[in-house]
Amino acid sequence: MVDIDINKYLAEKKALVDDALKEYFANINPFFKIMYYSIDGGKRIRPILAIMSFEANGGEDLKTVLPVACGLELIHTYSLIHDDLPSMDNDDYRRGRPSAHKKFGEAKAILSGDGLFAYAFELFTSGNSFTDEKYLVIKLVSDVVGPKGVVYGQTLDIGNGEDHTPKSLRKIHINKTAKFIATSIKCGAIMARASEATADKLYKAGICMGMLFQYTDDILDVVGKKEKLGKTPGKDSAVGKLTAPAIYGLDGARFRADRYAHLAKKQFSKLGERFNIFNKITDFILNRTF
Amino acid sequence: MVDIDINKYLAEKKALVDDALKEYFANINPFFKIMYYSIDGGKRIRPILAIMSFEANGGEDLKTVLPVACGLELIHTYSLIHDDLPSMDNDDYRRGRPSAHKKFGEAKAILSGDGLFAYAFELFTSGNSFTDEKYLVIKLVSDVVGPKGVVYGQTLDIGNGEDHTPKSLRKIHINKTAKFIATSIKCGAIMARASEATADKLYKAGICMGMLFQYTDDILDVVGKKEKLGKTPGKDSAVGKLTAPAIYGLDGARFRADRYAHLAKKQFSKLGERFNIFNKITDFILNRTF
Repeated sequence: MVDIDINKYLAEKKALVDDALKEYFANINPFFKIMYYSIDGGKRIRPILAIMSFEANGGEDLKTVLPVACGLELIHTYSLIHDDLPSMDNDDYRRGRPSAHKKFGEAKAILSGDGLFAYAFELFTSGNSFTDEKYLVIKLVSDVVGPKGVVYGQTLDIGNGEDHTPKSLRKIHINKTAKFIATSIKCGAIMARASEATADKLYKAGICMGMLFQYTDDILDVVGKKEKLGKTPGKDSAVGKLTAPAIYGLDGARFRADRYAHLAKKQFSKLGERFNIFNKITDFILNRTF
Repeated sequence: MVDIDINKYLAEKKALVDDALKEYFANINPFFKIMYYSIDGGKRIRPILAIMSFEANGGEDLKTVLPVACGLELIHTYSLIHDDLPSMDNDDYRRGRPSAHKKFGEAKAILSGDGLFAYAFELFTSGNSFTDEKYLVIKLVSDVVGPKGVVYGQTLDIGNGEDHTPKSLRKIHINKTAKFIATSIKCGAIMARASEATADKLYKAGICMGMLFQYTDDILDVVGKKEKLGKTPGKDSAVGKLTAPAIYGLDGARFRADRYAHLAKKQFSKLGERFNIFNKITDFILNRTF
């Protein structure tokens, strides 16, 4: 197998996603421009994972997976917009510029999030082929991003004043981040009509990758630079949030991030050589600086 | 055909919907209790319209339509929670008690809305039968409640300081209310596997019913009583919102409400006797005091 340059791979896939997103937001009504402001500039990790999984599972026509992949990015962006609101994390800076409520005011920021969330499901149901697969995607995604997953994680995150335990940290990370990362990978597998067994194994490995992702996020909140992150570092510790460094210290968090990376790669490796790319992106996430 | 007592009919269907909602929100995690606070106490117009349409189109097993009908109520409730927020309409009172942000704070109110929205799509995909129909429901609903419909209407509603024209009023009413009412009726038809032609005709009649619904809403904001409405009347005019009475005066608004009712009934009547119930609910909406 040809050795893949992961940076080049990520840049190529990001360009694909960016182009598709641009197309999905063009010339519909004036509010799409406001929503697109928040969409613009993301790393596109979730859609890239979906595409990666689609390809690794033998999927060929990227047009099949792109609306699903982009829908995941819309949902991620909606959750960032709402999380940044003054009543939540109160973050003024996101993706390298003023966050939605700083730019457009709170009402339009909330509605941008709402609009992106709904539009994601519209993208999931675009076209008339692969409807069984897209139905499964919707079933999975709505379960994972709602009050049993991302939304639940966020309620724990904002409500957590006292319960500073490893167990509580894990519960927040799993719900807020890991399930959604794992789901992104599984969605690609579903759209490629992979077997349920493979899709489930990818989901499990994805949970480890998602935990790794959140650990590096927590670490970067301590050691990261605003210019690279495109958001304000130090926010989590400033408001006393439950983070990996807060529980385990910086070294302890790094040690555990490393372990999650190891666990993820072990599981991806078992799936065979065509999933090698997942080991590369796992290392990329482990070593990321943004 | 036996003459139906519409009040009795509505009470029976409301009880069905209330019971199903209670079941869907029982014992999942603590946040479901917070979301349920806002769900409790609604009139259930949208789910009842879906059920009504399901039955009129020959649907038999209500278990088929109930998750879809309740999903519509979840989406309606999410939009109320977000509309009531301080940065939007700033309404402290809803469904006869403190609105979500007054009860739980802004952050949890926003997340309640987000959670209900996601959970609606989980309900839409519950079970493994009627998946083609449910796919169509999701396609239709996501289009209508998002940035081409309800969310778009709300952006126009909050952003409308100057453009006080009949055209602008119509655009807001169509997007914020009428499409969603029409969609609720169409969803019932889809779940009963009605023909596309019938479903489309019901949608068109539903647009008139939806316009009527919003006109009576605007009128009740002027003449309604807080105890009956369960929300604060006079809010719209106080913040200078674009409403039917603001454009046409109270009598002009009443005249037009009457005309929408007439138009709706004319279209429902053309569909045949089994759709008579829709004429009854149209009159009920025309004459409602809450």
